[in-house]
Amino acid sequence: MFSLYTDRYQLSMLGAYLREGIASRRAVFELSMRKLPKARRFLVVAGIDRALRYLEGVRFTEDEISYLRESASLRDVMTDEMIEYLRSFRFRGRVFGLREGEVLMGGGPILRVEGTLAECQIVETFLLGVINHESKVASKAARVVLAARGRPVMEFGARRLDPLSAPSAARAAYIAGCIGTSCEEAGFRYGVPVSGTCAHSYMLAHVDDGEDGAFRAFAEAFPSGTSLLVDTWDTIRGTLRAAKAGPAVKAVRVDSGDLARLGPQIRSILDAAGRSDVKIIGSDDMDEYKINALLEAGAPYDTFGVGTAIVLSPDSPSFGAVYKLVEVDDRRGVAMPVAKRAPGKASYGGAKAMWRKMTKDKDGNAVAGEDFVALASEKPDGVALYVEHMRDGKRLSTANEKEATRDARSYAKEQLATLPAAQRVVALEETTPASEQYRVTISDAVRRLEKLDG
Amino acid sequence: MFSLYTDRYQLSMLGAYLREGIASRRAVFELSMRKLPKARRFLVVAGIDRALRYLEGVRFTEDEISYLRESASLRDVMTDEMIEYLRSFRFRGRVFGLREGEVLMGGGPILRVEGTLAECQIVETFLLGVINHESKVASKAARVVLAARGRPVMEFGARRLDPLSAPSAARAAYIAGCIGTSCEEAGFRYGVPVSGTCAHSYMLAHVDDGEDGAFRAFAEAFPSGTSLLVDTWDTIRGTLRAAKAGPAVKAVRVDSGDLARLGPQIRSILDAAGRSDVKIIGSDDMDEYKINALLEAGAPYDTFGVGTAIVLSPDSPSFGAVYKLVEVDDRRGVAMPVAKRAPGKASYGGAKAMWRKMTKDKDGNAVAGEDFVALASEKPDGVALYVEHMRDGKRLSTANEKEATRDARSYAKEQLATLPAAQRVVALEETTPASEQYRVTISDAVRRLEKLDG
Repeated sequence: MFSLYTDRYQLSMLGAYLREGIASRRAVFELSMRKLPKARRFLVVAGIDRALRYLEGVRFTEDEISYLRESASLRDVMTDEMIEYLRSFRFRGRVFGLREGEVLMGGGPILRVEGTLAECQIVETFLLGVINHESKVASKAARVVLAARGRPVMEFGARRLDPLSAPSAARAAYIAGCIGTSCEEAGFRYGVPVSGTCAHSYMLAHVDDGEDGAFRAFAEAFPSGTSLLVDTWDTIRGTLRAAKAGPAVKAVRVDSGDLARLGPQIRSILDAAGRSDVKIIGSDDMDEYKINALLEAGAPYDTFGVGTAIVLSPDSPSFGAVYKLVEVDDRRGVAMPVAKRAPGKASYGGAKAMWRKMTKDKDGNAVAGEDFVALASEKPDGVALYVEHMRDGKRLSTANEKEATRDARSYAKEQLATLPAAQRVVALEETTPASEQYRVTISDAVRRLEKLDG
Repeated sequence: MFSLYTDRYQLSMLGAYLREGIASRRAVFELSMRKLPKARRFLVVAGIDRALRYLEGVRFTEDEISYLRESASLRDVMTDEMIEYLRSFRFRGRVFGLREGEVLMGGGPILRVEGTLAECQIVETFLLGVINHESKVASKAARVVLAARGRPVMEFGARRLDPLSAPSAARAAYIAGCIGTSCEEAGFRYGVPVSGTCAHSYMLAHVDDGEDGAFRAFAEAFPSGTSLLVDTWDTIRGTLRAAKAGPAVKAVRVDSGDLARLGPQIRSILDAAGRSDVKIIGSDDMDEYKINALLEAGAPYDTFGVGTAIVLSPDSPSFGAVYKLVEVDDRRGVAMPVAKRAPGKASYGGAKAMWRKMTKDKDGNAVAGEDFVALASEKPDGVALYVEHMRDGKRLSTANEKEATRDARSYAKEQLATLPAAQRVVALEETTPASEQYRVTISDAVRRLEKLDG
C-alpha cells in the first residue's frame, strides 16, 4: 500500500545498503523546516496523522515487486535478498515530533523518525509530501482565517488541485480554523463539515423562468435554509430578487465585481427589505489580503468562501520541509551525529526535539517567544513541544481519522490564540524578514556536535 | 468510485434539478481557459485521459449514499428519487475536446461535455481538478524543457506535493517533454521512465568510510552505471573523488552552491581525469529561469533535475480553467445558448470547438498563428483541434493508461515543435502581455448568440 509513492533513489539506496550490510543499522532522520517560507510569519503543522497511518500501512505488493524487478536501472541490486526485504517490509520504527496543529514561528524539526537506515529512508518521499502539502494549506488557511477577524471562512478549492489531494487540503484548512469545506470526500473521510448551495450554472439552467424562477425553485427545494448566488447577471437586481425569495434564504453570495462597493449596497437592499438576518458571503478569488482590505474598508461581509488561495497558497507555493539523516550507528554500533555541509543547506546533526517559552504581558497576551532546538537528551527550560507518536511501527493514538482531525483543530486553535502580535500580521509587511520578537535557539550541545567530514 | 470527490453544491443542485423535473434536460458544459495564466505564453493541455477514465468509472457506493443521507444540510432534498438517482448514477454523456498534449497559445475551450444537466453538473469538480493540475504541471514543464535546449530534464518533485498527486504530476511533466521522473508509482501506473540514484543521506550514512567509501560502495552496487552526488561536504573534492570511482560512474550530480561557477570546474576536473564521458547533472531548486541563465553563461550541464518548479509552478501556481454551462434545453426541448454576465467573468454561450491556422516563413517555421473559437456547427478555415473523446459514457480510445500517456507525449512533442518564436520565450519578459503574434478569434456566430438575461 502506497509503497511506490516514493522516489526511485530510495530503492536504489536500499539496494546499496543491503549489499553493504548496513540496511539494518539504527538511524535517526529528521523532517524539518530550515526557516519560515517566504511571506509567512508562522506555520501550522498538519499532515501528521496521515503520515503516521502511512507508516503503519505501507507494504509492497507482489505486482509492485514484479514491476521493480522489470526495471532495467534497478537490475544491479534486485537480488533475492532485496526482493525478500521488499516482501516483508514494514515500518517498525519510532516517531517523535510536534503535535498536529502545532504553530511554529520559526524553523525547526517537525518529526524525528527512528528505525533502521533502510526503513527510514524508504518512507522519506511520502512523509515529506504529506507534511509539505497539508502544512502549506494549513499555514495559508490560518492567515485567511486571521484576516477574517472571527467571520467564518469556508474552503472551496477542490477544483484547483488534483482531486485526489482535495480531501487532505480540506482537512488541513479545517485544522487551521476554516469552518468547513465544499469537498464532499473530506466530510466522508475526515468529518470536515461540508456545505455548498448553487453555482452560476444553476441560474443559467433556468432558461424558461430566469433568475426569479431559479431563486424560487431553489428556496423551495431547501425550505430549511440556503444561500442564493446573486451575481449571475446583475448583482443589485439579483439581491433585490433574493430579498423577496422568502424565509428559506439565509444568505446571498457575491462572486464577482467590486466587492468593496457592492457589500454596503447589498446590505442596504437586504435591510430595506426587512431581511437584516440575511448574511452576505463574499467569494471572488479571495485571499487574506483581499479580505483584510474589504474589512478595513468596512464592507459588511459575514462569511468568506476561499478556494485557490487556500489550497495552492500562491504567495508561498512551496512549503519546503526537508528530511535529513541526523544520526546513524557506525560499525561498532555507536550512534554518530551526521550533517551535510552543502552551502546554504547545512544542517545540524543529532537527534533533537523542541521546547518553547513565551513571554506574556500583564494581560496574559504573548508578546514574544523563543523556541529551543536541543538534543532529545537535553532538558532545556520551557514547555516540551515533542511527543511520542509511534513505537515499533504502531501509532500510540487510538483516534480515528475524524477524531485526529478534530483534535488537531482544537490544538491549533489553542496554539493560534497564543500567537504574539508580531506574528499575527497578515497585511503586506509580512514579506519583511521574520520578526525579531521570536527567536529560535539552537542549543550549545547541538552546535558542539562534531560534524562528520567525508 | 470517486463520486464524493466533488463539491457539495453539485449535490445540492442535483436535488433541486430533480425536484424541478429538469435533471434530465440536455445540457452542454465547457471546460475552458478564459485567457493564458500569468507568466505563460503557451499551455500544454494534460489530464484528459484521467478525466475520461473518471467519467467512465464514477459511481456512488452505498456507504457514500448513507453518508449523504446523514448530512443535515442535504436533508431537504434527499428524497427516495434522489437516492435512486445516486444509486444508478453513471455518466452516459458525450465528450469532445482538444487532444491530450495539445498546445494552446491563448485561451479557449478545452473540453465540451454533453449529457443531462444533472450528470454534467456532478462531474464538474473532478474534471476541473484533473485538468487544472495536470495542465499546470505540463505547461510549466514544457517551459523548463525548452529552457534546457535539448538537454534532458528529469522531474523529481514528488516530495513537494501531496503524495497522491505525484504520479499524475510526473505523468504531466513527461507528456510535456521531461525524460522521466523520480516517482516510482508513475512508472508503475503510467509507464513514465523512472530514475534516481542517491541522496545526501546515503553519503552521510557512511560514517565509517566517508565519501570515498560511499562512492566506492555505490559504484560497486551499480556496475551497469550510476551517478554520484558530489556536494555533501565539498563539491570540488567530491568531484575529484568521483572522477576516480571507476567506470560505473556515468554522471555526477551537484545540488548546491554557485552552479554557474562550479560547472566549469567540475567539467575540468572530470576531463583532466580522463572522464570526459561523465555527465554533469544540476539540480539545486532549478527552474526555467535558472537553467536559462546557466546555459547563457555557458555552464556545462548535461542534464537537469527539477522538482518544486515543475510540480508547483510557483510563478503561475493556479491554472484557472473553468467549467460553464453554455447550452441547455428549454421546456419545449429547444437548445438555448446561455452565458453569465458577471463582470470580468463573462463567457460565451453555445456549443463550441476550436480550429487553428499557423503562418509559416519560407523555411517552414511557424511565425504566427490564429485560433478560431466557433460554434461546433460552423466550419471555419484551419485545422480542427477538436476530436470526439467519449460517446454514451464510453471512451472511444482503446489505449490503456500507459499508451495514452505515451500518445499524449508524442502529440505534445509534435505540437511544441510548431511553437512560434514569440511563444518560445522563457526569460523574464514572458510576464509581458501575451504576444501579438498569436490571436484567438471568437466567431461572429458565437458573438451573435443571444445571451439569456435573467
